[in-house]
Amino acid sequence: MSKKIITISREFGSGGRYIGEQVAKALNIPYYDKKIIAKAAEQSGLSEEFIEKKGEYSPIKSMFAYAFVGRDSTGASLDDYLFSVQRDIILDIAAQGSCVIVGRCADYILKEDPSCINIFIHGNMPEKTARIMSMYEKTEAEAVKLIKETDKKRAFNYKYYTDQKWGIAQNYTLCLNSSQITYEKCIEIIADLAK
Amino acid sequence: MSKKIITISREFGSGGRYIGEQVAKALNIPYYDKKIIAKAAEQSGLSEEFIEKKGEYSPIKSMFAYAFVGRDSTGASLDDYLFSVQRDIILDIAAQGSCVIVGRCADYILKEDPSCINIFIHGNMPEKTARIMSMYEKTEAEAVKLIKETDKKRAFNYKYYTDQKWGIAQNYTLCLNSSQITYEKCIEIIADLAK
Repeated sequence: MSKKIITISREFGSGGRYIGEQVAKALNIPYYDKKIIAKAAEQSGLSEEFIEKKGEYSPIKSMFAYAFVGRDSTGASLDDYLFSVQRDIILDIAAQGSCVIVGRCADYILKEDPSCINIFIHGNMPEKTARIMSMYEKTEAEAVKLIKETDKKRAFNYKYYTDQKWGIAQNYTLCLNSSQITYEKCIEIIADLAK
Repeated sequence: MSKKIITISREFGSGGRYIGEQVAKALNIPYYDKKIIAKAAEQSGLSEEFIEKKGEYSPIKSMFAYAFVGRDSTGASLDDYLFSVQRDIILDIAAQGSCVIVGRCADYILKEDPSCINIFIHGNMPEKTARIMSMYEKTEAEAVKLIKETDKKRAFNYKYYTDQKWGIAQNYTLCLNSSQITYEKCIEIIADLAK
C-alpha cells in the first residue's frame, strides 16, 4: 500500500485505542500513543507524569484562571507549550511513513496531508459503560461519570486547539459506532480502506 | 440477512442518493425516496409538487413569519402536517421489511428500531461542486451556492424536527466521506455491513 497515516479520535470506552492497535498490527505499521507521550517528555523537559495527565486535556480550568495563571510573558501557557511539542512530534512521525496515531488532535495537525485517513470511533452508552466498568473496576455510576467527564474534556481540548467541534462527521474520512458495528468489523473496514 | 433498514442522510452533491440506490440494488431490497413523495402526496391531499419542494426543507422562513403564517388553530403548520404524513409513511415502510430510505429524517423517525443502520454521506467541496456542475449544468459559483444553501436548509430542517444537530457522528452507525473513500467503496462497505 502507499503511505497512509491513520489518525484515530475516539470516545472514552468506545474501544478506539484497541481498534487502532489492531489496525496497526493488521497493516504491520507503527502505532503511536504512549510513545508520543514518552517522546514529548524527553523533548520538552516536562515530566512524563504531567504529560500523560495533561496531554489530551490541556486547557481545562476556569476561564478566569486560564487568563492569569501559568502563562509566560508571551501569553503562552505550559499547556500551549506541551501542545506545540506534541504537534512537532506528530508531524515528524507522519513524515517518516505509514502509521496509526491515536488522539492528540492528530487529524487536525495533519489536515494538509493527503495521505491521512481520519477516523472517529464512538459507541453506545451501555457498551461503553460495561467496558469501562470492566477495565477500570468501576461501578456503573462511576463509569458513566468518568465517560462523560473524559469526553467533555476531550471535546473542550479539541475545540480549544482546533476551533472545530469534536465528533462532527465532516472532519473525518470515516466515523464508526463500534457498539453497533463490532470492534472486529471496525478493524477490518479501516485496514481494508488503508490498503 | 436479517431485516435491515438502511437510512441515508447526505450532503448535497456527495452522491448519497446514488450510493443508496446502489446499496439497495446490491442487497436486492426496496429503495425509497421519490416513492415516499408520491405516497405522501396520495395520502395528504397535498400536491406532489408542493411535497417535492417542501419535503426536506420545511420550516425555512423567518421566525416571525413562522410564528404567524400558515398555522391552524392548534398551532400546526402545513409543514408540520407534511412531516407527520411522511413520518407515518416511513414507519409503515420500515415495518414491512428491509429497505433503503434516503433523507427525510428517517434516522430520527426510526431511532427506536434496532434493525436500523444509519448512514451519513458527506464529501469534499471540489468533488461535490464538480458533481453538481455536471448534473445540473451550473457554473462553479452557482454550484457552490446551491450546495451551501441546500445543506443549510437540510441542517435547519433536521434541527427543527429532531432537535439534533445534522452531521454529528454520534447520531449515525457509519459516516463516510465519499470523495476520499469513492462511491464504489462506500457502497461495498454499507452493503457488507448490512449482510
